[in-house]
Amino acid sequence: MANKKKETPLTGITVSKQEDFSAWYTELVNKAELADIRYNIKGFVCYRSWATITIKRMYEKYEKILEKNGHLPLIMPSLIPESNFYIEAEHVKGFAPEVFWVTEAGSEGNKLSERLALRPTSETALYKMYALWIRSYKDLPFKRYQSCQVWRYEGKMTRPFFRGREFHWIESHNVFATEEDAMKQVQEDMEMTYQMLQEEFSIPIIFFQRPQWDKFAGSINSYAADALMGSGKVLQLPSTHYLGQNFSKAFNVKFIDESGKEQYGYQTCYGPAISRIYGAMIALLGDDRGLILPFDLAPIQIIIVPILFKNKEEMILSKAREIYEKLKDIYYVKIDDSELSPGSKFYYWELKGVPFRIEIGPKDIEKQQVVIVRRHDNKKFFIHEAKLLDTLKNLAENYTKELKEKSLKDFEEQIELCYEPDAAKEALERGKIVCCGFCSLDMKSYHCAEVVEKELGGFVRGKRVDEEKHEFATCLICGETATCTVYIAKSY
Amino acid sequence: MANKKKETPLTGITVSKQEDFSAWYTELVNKAELADIRYNIKGFVCYRSWATITIKRMYEKYEKILEKNGHLPLIMPSLIPESNFYIEAEHVKGFAPEVFWVTEAGSEGNKLSERLALRPTSETALYKMYALWIRSYKDLPFKRYQSCQVWRYEGKMTRPFFRGREFHWIESHNVFATEEDAMKQVQEDMEMTYQMLQEEFSIPIIFFQRPQWDKFAGSINSYAADALMGSGKVLQLPSTHYLGQNFSKAFNVKFIDESGKEQYGYQTCYGPAISRIYGAMIALLGDDRGLILPFDLAPIQIIIVPILFKNKEEMILSKAREIYEKLKDIYYVKIDDSELSPGSKFYYWELKGVPFRIEIGPKDIEKQQVVIVRRHDNKKFFIHEAKLLDTLKNLAENYTKELKEKSLKDFEEQIELCYEPDAAKEALERGKIVCCGFCSLDMKSYHCAEVVEKELGGFVRGKRVDEEKHEFATCLICGETATCTVYIAKSY
Repeated sequence: MANKKKETPLTGITVSKQEDFSAWYTELVNKAELADIRYNIKGFVCYRSWATITIKRMYEKYEKILEKNGHLPLIMPSLIPESNFYIEAEHVKGFAPEVFWVTEAGSEGNKLSERLALRPTSETALYKMYALWIRSYKDLPFKRYQSCQVWRYEGKMTRPFFRGREFHWIESHNVFATEEDAMKQVQEDMEMTYQMLQEEFSIPIIFFQRPQWDKFAGSINSYAADALMGSGKVLQLPSTHYLGQNFSKAFNVKFIDESGKEQYGYQTCYGPAISRIYGAMIALLGDDRGLILPFDLAPIQIIIVPILFKNKEEMILSKAREIYEKLKDIYYVKIDDSELSPGSKFYYWELKGVPFRIEIGPKDIEKQQVVIVRRHDNKKFFIHEAKLLDTLKNLAENYTKELKEKSLKDFEEQIELCYEPDAAKEALERGKIVCCGFCSLDMKSYHCAEVVEKELGGFVRGKRVDEEKHEFATCLICGETATCTVYIAKSY
Repeated sequence: MANKKKETPLTGITVSKQEDFSAWYTELVNKAELADIRYNIKGFVCYRSWATITIKRMYEKYEKILEKNGHLPLIMPSLIPESNFYIEAEHVKGFAPEVFWVTEAGSEGNKLSERLALRPTSETALYKMYALWIRSYKDLPFKRYQSCQVWRYEGKMTRPFFRGREFHWIESHNVFATEEDAMKQVQEDMEMTYQMLQEEFSIPIIFFQRPQWDKFAGSINSYAADALMGSGKVLQLPSTHYLGQNFSKAFNVKFIDESGKEQYGYQTCYGPAISRIYGAMIALLGDDRGLILPFDLAPIQIIIVPILFKNKEEMILSKAREIYEKLKDIYYVKIDDSELSPGSKFYYWELKGVPFRIEIGPKDIEKQQVVIVRRHDNKKFFIHEAKLLDTLKNLAENYTKELKEKSLKDFEEQIELCYEPDAAKEALERGKIVCCGFCSLDMKSYHCAEVVEKELGGFVRGKRVDEEKHEFATCLICGETATCTVYIAKSY
């Protein structure tokens, strides 16, 4: 018999994700020790180590692909003088209500001569410098990024990682000689987003061209990835923006072209919010036993649990250590030799989302086998010791792909075509994404979008960028001729 | 003849480092495009890509060694409520004059109910959380770090990387069950600092136990690394602090010990300022031709310059590409096939601190050789093509070590033993570090330190931690019995 100690059993998550997503998420974040909301400023949370390790790996992957695509890193000041914001008129309107202001510094009562914003985004800091740095067409394309945090005085309810008043993102800001080059960058950004979110983080997304009333302040057009969360709501993830010459004219970002003439640059910017993507990922992949993580992103990838039987402890521990030694240079691996019972250890590491558990008991040693349990589907594998490395390699390589396929399957089932407002309203209530005809994405259609929000309880997410077909004759709301197919969803 | 084009020759640095360190440094930072001081907030600068790439690699190396030593990463909010600062009395006295305050947020005139500090350091944010996270001796040692920026409203003159009002550092904060364990951490921090600064970044340092009047606000003792800059001044680099139970008592950081009794933890903190170390490194290693960088930290490690002769362009470029292909998976390598003359290219990449230049001309192709020029000593190597990979491997492996040895040699020559104030003053004026007897490091000796500052023009840096011997009978200033040997230097 296994060596059972008296202990308070570790309790897993007590709420079902299906029944109460919000309570489930809160418990997950607490019990897996991902974030602590007890920090004493509203909307600001501490990211604990288990989350931080994953977030750092997500940054590494994103920075690598950005650099492969020709973006160079830089580091900008986090404070922006108030006057910078007034240079581009639309931008300030969009961001003014969200800014934290530094007004004092140093010894008591020392007021600064100008208010300084904690950056909500860095256009107005960077583009003043771009005007100094860019001289000639030879400097173009000028592609830069920074990994940093931004602050926004959010009115909406905050939730760890999903939405906070300080969050961690990457922002890339790019200048091109032509509109065509800039639009190619938008395309590259979208491909990069699919590669990262779907392939690496197992989050299915759809890219939408946002309606004019819902674009980035100061842009010509915004293209945003929406993730379909299991809860029937969508969450906006990375967005890329075509800025045209709006900012370059305001900030004087000019270059001398090949014929010697001065021209304004065409700009784009792109902002994957890594901390938010992390939130979406754990929300989407997790289950009622806790976290599920893509293999590369798990702080510990393999946990070895020795099943200790009386008088055989040393033999079992020594086998555990032997296996650990074989794996330690290939994977993030750990032996749990604490005093808890095997059952408590299983619960704990499932909660933490460790992809594989290796169990070793006396019978396994006799049979020269190890037991591998896969987190995402709880499937057990009995492997001959000699085949351990090969089998693990194979299991590990497929793990993230399996997560993605599972998410993608759920995804398509959530979309429903609607031709009448009542049907759309009812579909939204059932947690579906509505696909329908719409009069246009221009400002003139804003009143139809208001109806969608007030009467249907959803938001117009825009037009799918990967969809050419248009099969609706009329706008769902006003009944006028439809010029586009849009998607409507509840959102976070 | 080489294909000479008309061009404005690139000007290198016009000031000699020896003659005017300050002007030399400013030119280096501008011309090598490391930072831009034209950002429109005083004391805040933009780090450009060439510097950022190196700084990111420095972070990676530092994080790796911290994690190897058992520290886990976390991410804390950057804002700290004012009330947190008042919890530890000494700490607030030290930092209050340096804090930037957020007082407003959101729409016009919305005052916050409490001022929020931009963190000048994170003790008062973290330790409130540590009180919640640490429960039992099983949680100890509790070793965490974060990589982040901090803000300090500096009164002293700022200089890019050396000293700014926003800088980028790592802070590690650790809790132990005993004083002994905590002091072992201080020791480990010092070893880690030697490993990073001397071995990896080629910056010779001395660790000093700081006098009581110059320690971290709230600590029992501070141990700080001083780098001896070529200019005859020292620069404080990473410091580690033994906090005893000062903070744990103030913030209630307690644990249940093995006997079931509640105890206050013993704490340490450690803060390598990566951006400042970068400044010290480029200042120390650079020369009148520009940057010199440790091999691992150079954004480009090898630049290939084809020496194009008329009618042989294609042959030479094709050989350059062949060599590039051989090297590209091993090193950060680039071919400079721009239209500048070879001479201008040489200047440019020397200014940028690229460790090796490979030149390929028609004669070299004939002889099946390449020319390698080493940046730090301008030495030329003529290598048979077949031996290129082996030779480069060897040269690359030794490059950083050679930089370190050069710096270390200069280092010992800067120290001078002094027995009289006049001799000490004169030595300081010649740019030396003075070694002398001192009455003590306690507060009672503060007036002697004031004399050192006012009359000798130097600062008491403290007692070397690696020095046991004590050979001075009396204090340099008051003539009382000396209890320790201290070092006095001008400082940045």
